[in-house]
Amino acid sequence: MEIKERIIIESLKLFMRYGIRSITMDTIADKLGVSKRTIYELFKDKDSLLVHCLISKMKEEEKITDELLWKSANIIDGFLSHIRRSVNIIKSINPLFFHDIKKYHSAVFQYKGKERDEKSYKMTVKMLQQGKQEGYFREHINVDIIAILIKEQFEILGNDEIFPPDKYAKSELFENIAINFIRGISTSKGIAIIDHYKF
Amino acid sequence: MEIKERIIIESLKLFMRYGIRSITMDTIADKLGVSKRTIYELFKDKDSLLVHCLISKMKEEEKITDELLWKSANIIDGFLSHIRRSVNIIKSINPLFFHDIKKYHSAVFQYKGKERDEKSYKMTVKMLQQGKQEGYFREHINVDIIAILIKEQFEILGNDEIFPPDKYAKSELFENIAINFIRGISTSKGIAIIDHYKF
Repeated sequence: MEIKERIIIESLKLFMRYGIRSITMDTIADKLGVSKRTIYELFKDKDSLLVHCLISKMKEEEKITDELLWKSANIIDGFLSHIRRSVNIIKSINPLFFHDIKKYHSAVFQYKGKERDEKSYKMTVKMLQQGKQEGYFREHINVDIIAILIKEQFEILGNDEIFPPDKYAKSELFENIAINFIRGISTSKGIAIIDHYKF
Repeated sequence: MEIKERIIIESLKLFMRYGIRSITMDTIADKLGVSKRTIYELFKDKDSLLVHCLISKMKEEEKITDELLWKSANIIDGFLSHIRRSVNIIKSINPLFFHDIKKYHSAVFQYKGKERDEKSYKMTVKMLQQGKQEGYFREHINVDIIAILIKEQFEILGNDEIFPPDKYAKSELFENIAINFIRGISTSKGIAIIDHYKF
């Protein structure tokens, strides 16, 4: 693996585990056994390193999502796996990561957040259209409204103020938010698959 | 009608139509043909008048909701009528009303908002439990999570930033948010009713 790639992967891991602010360029250099100068030769500053980390993560996620969605037995199965995986990832990241990126790297956050939202919207629309064509989703759902709504459900599902983690089990939230949501837009053919899906 | 009640009803109408800040005690006095002194003898200040207006509106809504929910042919029919009515009311109120109450009467807003949320939560829980008992809602939905979630769907439905009114028709949002939501928690018996409900 190239040193640049190693720095990106290791930094991303550290950022996600401890937040961004507490991880200095020194910490990263120590961890990888390289000099700080080497890092600064490859990345102008921490913002630049962070952008590279986010691009790398997005590409990885896109690849995995693509596999989950399009190589599943059917679109409902793929979509449910995707949601469950996304929720697990979000929950595994230190909340400081999201806090720090919004507060101290807001330009990076806005730029990359917008790109991610757009990609995610397009992926959802594609998935919904395919589900309609295959007869799993109801003919007259509005794909645009549902795609926006799915994003909002994700945010509710991951919102610790609405559902404090010490009070609500992830699996219970998943069942009551994601599963109900998919049931709502599904035909009886789609619902039959959801009911047979093991959680 | 007593003068106190008349002042409350007329003020509420004015507040909902034009916002709170732009309606002075003078405007209200003029409109009702009473002296400002009469109003101040009955209400200490604008905050106090506003609290009376909100209590009056909540009582009226409770009564109507109760009739809609419990006197309908079935709980699904009642609930759909209730959602549709609520959305129409929210949309008919000048956004300045919500803006002003949050900004200039935040103590009233927090106090009455909390009370309203609690009442609404209890009403929803009761409705969900009855629907489960009658076999319209699925046995293993978590009533607590679903009740919280319903509140969130309402907020999304009424959020003009997520769904700008010039781009999304109310009826289309209602169909894709509320109807899908209820479908998601319903049994096949419940879904059959939804599919026969005329919108």
